[in-house]
Amino acid sequence: MTLFEAAAADMVTGPTVRVRITVAYDGTGFHGFAANIGVRTVAGVLAEALGRVLGHPIELSCAGRTDRGVHARGQVVTFDAREEGLDLPALARSVNHMCGPAVAVRDAAVVAADFDARFSATARRYRYLVLNRPDPDPFLARTAWHIERPLDRCAMVLACDPFIGEHDFTAFCRRPKRRHGEPDASLVRRVVEAGWSDDGDGVLRFEIEATAFCHQMVRSLVGTLVDVGAGRRAAGEMAGIIRAGDRAGAGDLAPPHGLTLWTVRYEGWSS
Amino acid sequence: MTLFEAAAADMVTGPTVRVRITVAYDGTGFHGFAANIGVRTVAGVLAEALGRVLGHPIELSCAGRTDRGVHARGQVVTFDAREEGLDLPALARSVNHMCGPAVAVRDAAVVAADFDARFSATARRYRYLVLNRPDPDPFLARTAWHIERPLDRCAMVLACDPFIGEHDFTAFCRRPKRRHGEPDASLVRRVVEAGWSDDGDGVLRFEIEATAFCHQMVRSLVGTLVDVGAGRRAAGEMAGIIRAGDRAGAGDLAPPHGLTLWTVRYEGWSS
Repeated sequence: MTLFEAAAADMVTGPTVRVRITVAYDGTGFHGFAANIGVRTVAGVLAEALGRVLGHPIELSCAGRTDRGVHARGQVVTFDAREEGLDLPALARSVNHMCGPAVAVRDAAVVAADFDARFSATARRYRYLVLNRPDPDPFLARTAWHIERPLDRCAMVLACDPFIGEHDFTAFCRRPKRRHGEPDASLVRRVVEAGWSDDGDGVLRFEIEATAFCHQMVRSLVGTLVDVGAGRRAAGEMAGIIRAGDRAGAGDLAPPHGLTLWTVRYEGWSS
Repeated sequence: MTLFEAAAADMVTGPTVRVRITVAYDGTGFHGFAANIGVRTVAGVLAEALGRVLGHPIELSCAGRTDRGVHARGQVVTFDAREEGLDLPALARSVNHMCGPAVAVRDAAVVAADFDARFSATARRYRYLVLNRPDPDPFLARTAWHIERPLDRCAMVLACDPFIGEHDFTAFCRRPKRRHGEPDASLVRRVVEAGWSDDGDGVLRFEIEATAFCHQMVRSLVGTLVDVGAGRRAAGEMAGIIRAGDRAGAGDLAPPHGLTLWTVRYEGWSS
């Protein structure tokens, strides 16, 4: 086969359909979701497997570009696939055999041509686990931040209140690089729910849902809330940190491995 | 230091106490519990860490010698330690930092001198997880046997009944090597509970408690029960397989990674 023929074989010919898949992954061995040259990423592994099974290259859109080491249970991804001969259950099975056990396609469906994993999403929900007890748990080592010193959960619950509603989260975000001549992107986000639950055996679960998140926002919030739990900050300081809009005012980032993109909501469907 | 001095420094001097620890481990990277030359075992890693912190060699006794790849949440281990200067919380912390995250000491206590992790145990409880749905779960890849084809849980529940009570489990065990001139060791065991639960999302949980288990007994039982769930055997065949006492009558061994030593019971305490 000549190079020209190889390229031609890679083209999508005939009508295509928009496909939506729900993906779970253990982010431990990945440099984040987004494809990046020279490193192993979830999108890289997925796109390669999907492309091999479909027989044509694909372009992925995803609901949440998770960072290095962050996990997902309900990541949503869309792409266009050639309609002819498309067998979604077979596609999911093949991709799972190629990408498993770290990445799993949980669900695959044909959706409207204008449905986009990222732009059609109405809300994202993240979960962060803290294991707060003296002894570690080998089965939570990959998915929970182990903090030996007892945290004051009541103070951490109280400290969540000021985050709910629409705020400028500049203090809790890594500001995206500004392109020359462009105005700063808005870091205003609407948080619809944020709180801690006690799952027993020392497991504290933080759940937060927002229309969208800025970069590193959940980890920055958790780091700051754990400061409150450890008595290094007062719960009452949160509103002031938001208002000041200074990243130095927030706590350190919580480590990535405690964080999981849990679910993404759309009009009439959620992952 | 001469060799003689090194050996002398290793001796336990002064009064000792019996210490009981509860240990959790992710068995994925270990060649089982029992110490074995040239391979990484849980006992090997633990004994080395404990010996280093205590400053003298120790000999471990354990409640259940789990096989390669099998996990534990409530393994119980006893050993003798020099009484002078013994600080159990500090010992647990140090060992956890040395052995983590795969091995964790959850609890440490001084017990009566005649308490032995193995011989004082009155019952052991194991748990086996099966993930029974088409799509895999990256977060259960290390701890559940993934079976895509739907299993008949009702048949599997029914099939457990004949195992309850005192039986000769020859058909479900790897017979221990007989020493010359010794009679065969008894493979009679008393099962006090055995059953399947549905944990949702396709997770089927098998729990079994017995006074003691023979080698590979739980994995052999699970393999046979899954045969029933898959329709390869009838639930009514179980009593006959027990009576026949022929290993060829039982199913294949279930893979080790679904199995976890969950808890061990003693007079007045359980892990």
